[in-house]
Amino acid sequence: MRTVFHRQLDDLNARMAELCDRTGEAMARATDALLAPDLQIAEAVIADYSDITCECTRLETDAFTILARQAPVAGDLRAVVSSLNDVADIARMGALATHVARISRRRHPEVAAPSEVAGYFTEMGRLAVRISQDTKTVVLSRDPDRAAQLATDDEAMDDLHRHLFTKVLDHRWTHGTTAAVDVTLLSRYYERFADHAVDVANRVIYQTTGTRQP
Amino acid sequence: MRTVFHRQLDDLNARMAELCDRTGEAMARATDALLAPDLQIAEAVIADYSDITCECTRLETDAFTILARQAPVAGDLRAVVSSLNDVADIARMGALATHVARISRRRHPEVAAPSEVAGYFTEMGRLAVRISQDTKTVVLSRDPDRAAQLATDDEAMDDLHRHLFTKVLDHRWTHGTTAAVDVTLLSRYYERFADHAVDVANRVIYQTTGTRQP
Repeated sequence: MRTVFHRQLDDLNARMAELCDRTGEAMARATDALLAPDLQIAEAVIADYSDITCECTRLETDAFTILARQAPVAGDLRAVVSSLNDVADIARMGALATHVARISRRRHPEVAAPSEVAGYFTEMGRLAVRISQDTKTVVLSRDPDRAAQLATDDEAMDDLHRHLFTKVLDHRWTHGTTAAVDVTLLSRYYERFADHAVDVANRVIYQTTGTRQP
Repeated sequence: MRTVFHRQLDDLNARMAELCDRTGEAMARATDALLAPDLQIAEAVIADYSDITCECTRLETDAFTILARQAPVAGDLRAVVSSLNDVADIARMGALATHVARISRRRHPEVAAPSEVAGYFTEMGRLAVRISQDTKTVVLSRDPDRAAQLATDDEAMDDLHRHLFTKVLDHRWTHGTTAAVDVTLLSRYYERFADHAVDVANRVIYQTTGTRQP
């Protein structure tokens, strides 16, 4: 039989999973806006972010209420406390999607990412969506093996980030300084998006196995 | 009379304050390494970061032990739970100092920041140190007015970040793409350093007044 506490914790996790979906969708749309380029989609990503922050605030308040009213112990206490850190990471993933959208908006009607590197951002956007989906699965399943797999996609994201960096700094880069600066920041936003997902995953690994990831 | 719990909470806050000092010092040294340039200082900042992460892990473990053993309620519960988020922010400030040091190391013996913009980084480094000191004061005093003042230095940091961005994107920028990319990332690291301090400050405001900062 599930206790009141466990039903509340399940509800918290279900809403965090839903937030993972929304940040993944935000990054998918920000990537579309970047590559099209599409000002309307960029504006929508930026506008919708306030819904994400409101839900994060509600989640924090509710997690805190569960702590205060149910006074969980041991693993249950750790689960609720960790969810507060998780919410902060997922909120930040949403913020990074808006950063991508802001760069698209700033350069509109020009494209911020030159066509030479568009393929990198298509792939980074695809990876970001997969990473959000995997984070959702990990949040719901609390499965440390699934959590550990997230590191693979994070490595792929880091590789793309490093390659892009090399491309921008190559003497054959012909797109000028503005594009170089935009591409550098954009690439960093995708890389950080993946890092925050890994932070959530590592917290699940620590909770379930007691092992801290390096 | 102080209870065991309050002595433990004081100890936690004292150690967080000490961490604020160390991240401020790390950013001061990273700024020195950047402007000199000085490879040895850069290497030392990077090497010393492992001490910061170890102390963060210890602080998290200890905060969690206090929660589990003392089972605090209401404001006391909120204070310990918030400290877990604070530690994550302060750890990130330390990581950002190492990012500055890594860029210096990558460009050595060249200077990553051209002399034309060195003054910006001198000022950003100075602000970062002041922000760390103010964060320390806020962590120890839990004074919401002092916490609110941190926003002023954060705005000054944001201004410098915006000015630098304009400078790098100006058609009169003559230092090439590599310097533009380095300056963009460096500037972003200082700006994020200040943001994390503001997150700590906002948590103190919320704990003491119940008001969330926008």
